[in-house]
Amino acid sequence: MRKLPFLLLFAFTVQISFAQTEDSIFIKRISDEILTNGKAYENLRHLTKKIGARLAGSPGMVKSEQWGLKVMQESGAHKAWMQECMVPHWVRGGKDIASAAYIPERGEVKSGPYPTSVKKELDIIALGNSVGTGNNTLTEQVVLVNSFDELEKKKEEVKDKIVFYNYKFNPTYINTFLSYRDAGQYRGQGPSRAAKYGAKAVIVRSMSHAADNHPHTGAIRYDSAYAKIPAVAIGLQDADWLSEQLQKRNVMVTLKTNGHFLPDTIGHNIIGELRGTEFPDEIITVGGHLDSWDNCEGAHDDGAGCVQTIEMLRAFKAIGYKPKRTIRFVLFANEENGLRGGNKYAEEAKAKNEKHILAMESDAGGFTPRSLGFSGSDVQYEKVLSWKALIAPYGCTEINKGGGGADIGPLNRALKTPTASLNPDSQRYFDIHHARSDVFEAVNKRELELGAVNMAAFIYLVDKYGL
Amino acid sequence: MRKLPFLLLFAFTVQISFAQTEDSIFIKRISDEILTNGKAYENLRHLTKKIGARLAGSPGMVKSEQWGLKVMQESGAHKAWMQECMVPHWVRGGKDIASAAYIPERGEVKSGPYPTSVKKELDIIALGNSVGTGNNTLTEQVVLVNSFDELEKKKEEVKDKIVFYNYKFNPTYINTFLSYRDAGQYRGQGPSRAAKYGAKAVIVRSMSHAADNHPHTGAIRYDSAYAKIPAVAIGLQDADWLSEQLQKRNVMVTLKTNGHFLPDTIGHNIIGELRGTEFPDEIITVGGHLDSWDNCEGAHDDGAGCVQTIEMLRAFKAIGYKPKRTIRFVLFANEENGLRGGNKYAEEAKAKNEKHILAMESDAGGFTPRSLGFSGSDVQYEKVLSWKALIAPYGCTEINKGGGGADIGPLNRALKTPTASLNPDSQRYFDIHHARSDVFEAVNKRELELGAVNMAAFIYLVDKYGL
Repeated sequence: MRKLPFLLLFAFTVQISFAQTEDSIFIKRISDEILTNGKAYENLRHLTKKIGARLAGSPGMVKSEQWGLKVMQESGAHKAWMQECMVPHWVRGGKDIASAAYIPERGEVKSGPYPTSVKKELDIIALGNSVGTGNNTLTEQVVLVNSFDELEKKKEEVKDKIVFYNYKFNPTYINTFLSYRDAGQYRGQGPSRAAKYGAKAVIVRSMSHAADNHPHTGAIRYDSAYAKIPAVAIGLQDADWLSEQLQKRNVMVTLKTNGHFLPDTIGHNIIGELRGTEFPDEIITVGGHLDSWDNCEGAHDDGAGCVQTIEMLRAFKAIGYKPKRTIRFVLFANEENGLRGGNKYAEEAKAKNEKHILAMESDAGGFTPRSLGFSGSDVQYEKVLSWKALIAPYGCTEINKGGGGADIGPLNRALKTPTASLNPDSQRYFDIHHARSDVFEAVNKRELELGAVNMAAFIYLVDKYGL
Repeated sequence: MRKLPFLLLFAFTVQISFAQTEDSIFIKRISDEILTNGKAYENLRHLTKKIGARLAGSPGMVKSEQWGLKVMQESGAHKAWMQECMVPHWVRGGKDIASAAYIPERGEVKSGPYPTSVKKELDIIALGNSVGTGNNTLTEQVVLVNSFDELEKKKEEVKDKIVFYNYKFNPTYINTFLSYRDAGQYRGQGPSRAAKYGAKAVIVRSMSHAADNHPHTGAIRYDSAYAKIPAVAIGLQDADWLSEQLQKRNVMVTLKTNGHFLPDTIGHNIIGELRGTEFPDEIITVGGHLDSWDNCEGAHDDGAGCVQTIEMLRAFKAIGYKPKRTIRFVLFANEENGLRGGNKYAEEAKAKNEKHILAMESDAGGFTPRSLGFSGSDVQYEKVLSWKALIAPYGCTEINKGGGGADIGPLNRALKTPTASLNPDSQRYFDIHHARSDVFEAVNKRELELGAVNMAAFIYLVDKYGL
């Protein structure tokens, strides 16, 4: 595109036609501050490139907590602290006791002649919380199932085998979170449902429609009624290949995984606070989660939510905003494989009898903002909806019923706190979600910043008008 | 993000709550076809990776035209043809007559001591349609101006110098096309406005807010009243550095550019047609432009619009749709530096007394769809607006007044044809626009496909109900 046709421009001016009110002027100030002087992108660069992966219990977790506290302080929090909680400590590897060398995960296909024998390394990743194959490798025949229904039909066949769940991520949902909900059960429940029929391990097709072959990890939930068996994911190209092979031959796969739990350890929620001037006892929480999976930089999941949270604090301070209510900016611990941070935050809020009027979360990636989600009473929803025209010019053109996040769920359950979420565009999220491709380079600076702008506008309105 | 909170899902189901009508069912079929069997992404891979840059007059132009015709035929056009037009033939380089070696563009800063001398290669790119520095390099002192106002103030100083326009791309506009309109005048008019006061060349800060240093090219328009002088762009890091230097010292820059025009040559619009069954003489045009700048793959600009256009044809055929009206799928020639393709299309339509009821263009990148733009009568706009709920579930949640595209502008002017545009999210466009970073890897498969879905839905409705 060379130049902008005049007619086309007409459409764009809609964004500034909203009557100039005190609120619209203030929100524009927030937006200008974040888009002009924003530090979210450079903070994300530090978090991803200098610290990197930060699964609960890892050295990255400790470093990121220290960093988070420092940045909260530097960004102008009246008070910043670490809220301690015990966190699970799952590790992927894998050190040889004799040599202390790292033992890598490995998946390999080696199968006999039809028409010729095949041998192929699979690009695998053990699923989070999964057990390993022990000191030895595990070599078994693979049974292809395309769904749980098919597993039920083949339940007599899977004993002592490896079950390969090849359930496809549905491309026809426009909102990709629906595809994730649909396919995600194969990761979460798949291992135990296969173990129920005596399977020795499972291989899961990654929950993604990426054009690449990266495997995507994520937590599994073992059902205590059945044996805990090793579970790995493979990427889409490997999954298609394996499925094709299995339609014409028997396939043997050798797996070596090393996942295991170490004793629980200490982690922290990182909290920065701006003290309210009129109603300091009314608390608004906004946050993301600081932990990430261990195989990536956790740039979108949920580095983005963390640096957006810090950016709101920085921007409020930079423009001299003095909130009426107390706003807490929280980087939650251990969302990915335990939710201990979110639980701890709710427990302490309840124990201290705190009054929480809203909790908001950004945990769907640092993509261009599209809508806000809100869960509260109908009266509250009507109030929130009345702010739509104030926020729409910045990207969130809708405020939908239904909003929250894993970390703020416990607060909602403990204190009935209304919850909200930033819903960015979902098209690119599952390309990189829990995969090695979730890196800084996958995040766009302006998309990231606009997420902070939309949330800050919403928080400002809740602070000003209550709920 | 680990799992989807139940409440959040509630918001996502809105997309499927629209009453199932014949139209909504049909549009879902189009969408499912494109998202499941779409070829837009693989077509784009071919166009960008096998063919690459395709500026008017270049070998890439010829190859892409042949490819376009073939793909139109393979995608099921009832008729596909090349519409000839003369196109300008601007080239960037630059061959040494004696050795036939390519002469690269070059920009270098070499300046005396303050406090120490500086020497630095600038990453430059000549602006499109610009003249070169001739057989020799051009070395002159640089005058920094941050705006045209500042140029006027410094008009006595710029004679025989190089003017450096350091006008910043405004980050505070949410729609980045507004920033482009604002800053773009420095590229388009800058050279002649500096030449008016005797400048020897201009350097322009790129129209971008990218975090990298790639220079962005684009067309300039010389004013015939003044000398044609060389004009180059530099990236943002170089621009910030140069501006900083100029605030403390005199800076000499050496430029070598080789741009020049060869005689006009033959190019083509590539047209595929589905013949209407009821009103074959009523024509709906939808397209993008096949040419790109010579320094990139033109993946977003406008490879995306081309493969979306072809995808609509493919999908209509694949689901057996027989349009009432004639639909023409057009890959326009020479949008970037001449618009000869769009002009030719309009001329021929007028000469043949054709009846064109709508022309639609996709030329704002292959990003996630956000809105449609429409320019027509108020009655027509009301009709179009009544389709909003049918299209919104696929991403274009708004239908705004004002829509068109450079290539379909001439048809509108010649025949008063209503025009429409796909308006995808604009945040990432000017990171890569006219820069070497506009490559296949910058395009997301689903975002690209959804653009085709939204346009196909609109074209279907116009075909069915007329305008």
